[in-house]
Amino acid sequence: MIRIFVTGGTFDKTYDEITGQLSFADTHLPEMLRLGRSRIEVSVRTLMMIDSLEMTDTDRDLIVRNCQQCDESCIVITHGTDTMVETAAALARRVSDKTIVLTGAMIPYAFGSSDGLFNLGSALSFVQVLPPGVYIAMNGRHFKWNKVRKNRETGAFETVS
Amino acid sequence: MIRIFVTGGTFDKTYDEITGQLSFADTHLPEMLRLGRSRIEVSVRTLMMIDSLEMTDTDRDLIVRNCQQCDESCIVITHGTDTMVETAAALARRVSDKTIVLTGAMIPYAFGSSDGLFNLGSALSFVQVLPPGVYIAMNGRHFKWNKVRKNRETGAFETVS
Amino acid sequence: MIRIFVTGGTFDKTYDEITGQLSFADTHLPEMLRLGRSRIEVSVRTLMMIDSLEMTDTDRDLIVRNCQQCDESCIVITHGTDTMVETAAALARRVSDKTIVLTGAMIPYAFGSSDGLFNLGSALSFVQVLPPGVYIAMNGRHFKWNKVRKNRETGAFETVS
Amino acid sequence: MIRIFVTGGTFDKTYDEITGQLSFADTHLPEMLRLGRSRIEVSVRTLMMIDSLEMTDTDRDLIVRNCQQCDESCIVITHGTDTMVETAAALARRVSDKTIVLTGAMIPYAFGSSDGLFNLGSALSFVQVLPPGVYIAMNGRHFKWNKVRKNRETGAFETVS
Repeated sequence: MIRIFVTGGTFDKTYDEITGQLSFADTHLPEMLRLGRSRIEVSVRTLMMIDSLEMTDTDRDLIVRNCQQCDESCIVITHGTDTMVETAAALARRVSDKTIVLTGAMIPYAFGSSDGLFNLGSALSFVQVLPPGVYIAMNGRHFKWNKVRKNRETGAFETVS
Repeated sequence: MIRIFVTGGTFDKTYDEITGQLSFADTHLPEMLRLGRSRIEVSVRTLMMIDSLEMTDTDRDLIVRNCQQCDESCIVITHGTDTMVETAAALARRVSDKTIVLTGAMIPYAFGSSDGLFNLGSALSFVQVLPPGVYIAMNGRHFKWNKVRKNRETGAFETVS
Repeated sequence: MIRIFVTGGTFDKTYDEITGQLSFADTHLPEMLRLGRSRIEVSVRTLMMIDSLEMTDTDRDLIVRNCQQCDESCIVITHGTDTMVETAAALARRVSDKTIVLTGAMIPYAFGSSDGLFNLGSALSFVQVLPPGVYIAMNGRHFKWNKVRKNRETGAFETVS
Repeated sequence: MIRIFVTGGTFDKTYDEITGQLSFADTHLPEMLRLGRSRIEVSVRTLMMIDSLEMTDTDRDLIVRNCQQCDESCIVITHGTDTMVETAAALARRVSDKTIVLTGAMIPYAFGSSDGLFNLGSALSFVQVLPPGVYIAMNGRHFKWNKVRKNRETGAFETVS
């Protein structure tokens, strides 16, 4: 059984046709799992629906405590890419003995041309086979939480040493 | 570096608007990797573009030899789901010391609502972390080649003991 | 009020993931009208769900009688493109004083990249402003029933004199 | 021959994956015409790429002059929905003897689930058959420029008397 925590991010941004702005409504996770014909046992819980640039220490604390307290030892977290590394670090300091994989998207899933489904397939796969630790799964790759940064110019995640 | 061998299957079926039939043209793999913002080093080679129900022993032999002879030790094969298990068995008998993951799709990628992108993200992730052996990655799960079958009624892959 | 009769055709073909074949299930018309944010008053009725190459004289007779007997004077018919011209001729011989527009698609709507939504918007617009008669709306154009043929090599509809 | 003037609006909004904001790049019109298998003779010209809430009198003057000076007597204008009615009024005051149809979208075309393709098919059809005048084509309907308003709560266009 894999636990999935939803926190928002580009992954779940929606176009609000009345305001003409991007916004958050419900998560697309269940629809994405259906589309991917996923047969993994998962339990999905939405913790927040926010842009990761607006994520506070209190929000991060909530994520950490949920990871500590849940029964599952395999956890995937959908998260905005801008501060994904920061949340990964907070988790690494306070959660041990669990495999936690954070993932997200550069393009909202509600756009037909999103990388979200690829990343979700990737994160759910890595979490099943990686040893305990905190990882980021983006661009088809996985990174240890303290060996990665987002390149703000290209949008890609890359290894730092 | 991951080697990707393309063999066709539902993954790459296209709708031919002149004949009104499903057919094969070029593979969608490069487009899918672009959409997924994949930053994995891959080398893609199309071996054939066929429905896996029409795959012969000669075709399987070609796949096996390509896996034996390529330099890469991580290999993903896109394949029709109907005889994926059979090809996995042929590979297991004749290729060792390499991690080979077969994947496919229930819905053609050219359809907007395909599971292909999810499965591709999954297969490319499993191949990076699983020990040498032959596996099938479908429905978000991975199976050893001799512990899996396709359930023809549900379309899902499931464990056999 | 516009009457819409559904008869099948490429428009409504679906990919059956168990058999791997194209098939017909329910019509996508209501979903397409929703997607187009249509505010036209319409009444949708499915007469049949078949490939137009398999349409018999009895089927055509059923279409004709429905057009004769319905209260609406504006009618859109979704239809396979292969014998659309033949059905248009049957209608022209036996229905007068109504504006009837036949339309279809080269690519199934269930594929993300269909021309169906464009054609539906076109047909619903033409039917509101053209004088009584039987027309085909394809490729953004409208044709009188006796001035059109489908070019089987290009898939496009063109004027004949 | 139909002239198409592009002015931006939701129709052409794109998601900028580096900034995470909606923005304008190139118009999607040619791609949409290709998708719709349009065989209408058109000549496309981008006049501006802006949100219609930011459209100034100078911008509107540019649109008017282009409509006055072009050779074609059938003109489609893609336009943001928020001030579409205002531009229609400016055109009606200064352009006569031409059929001008303004259209737009509630959802960007770059989103898979846009109403844009439906509206484009509709606008291109109305412009071929309506008498000279200025019209808005939205929601499958057409409205005279002085008989329409956008309902800001529902997002739909409706008749005013």
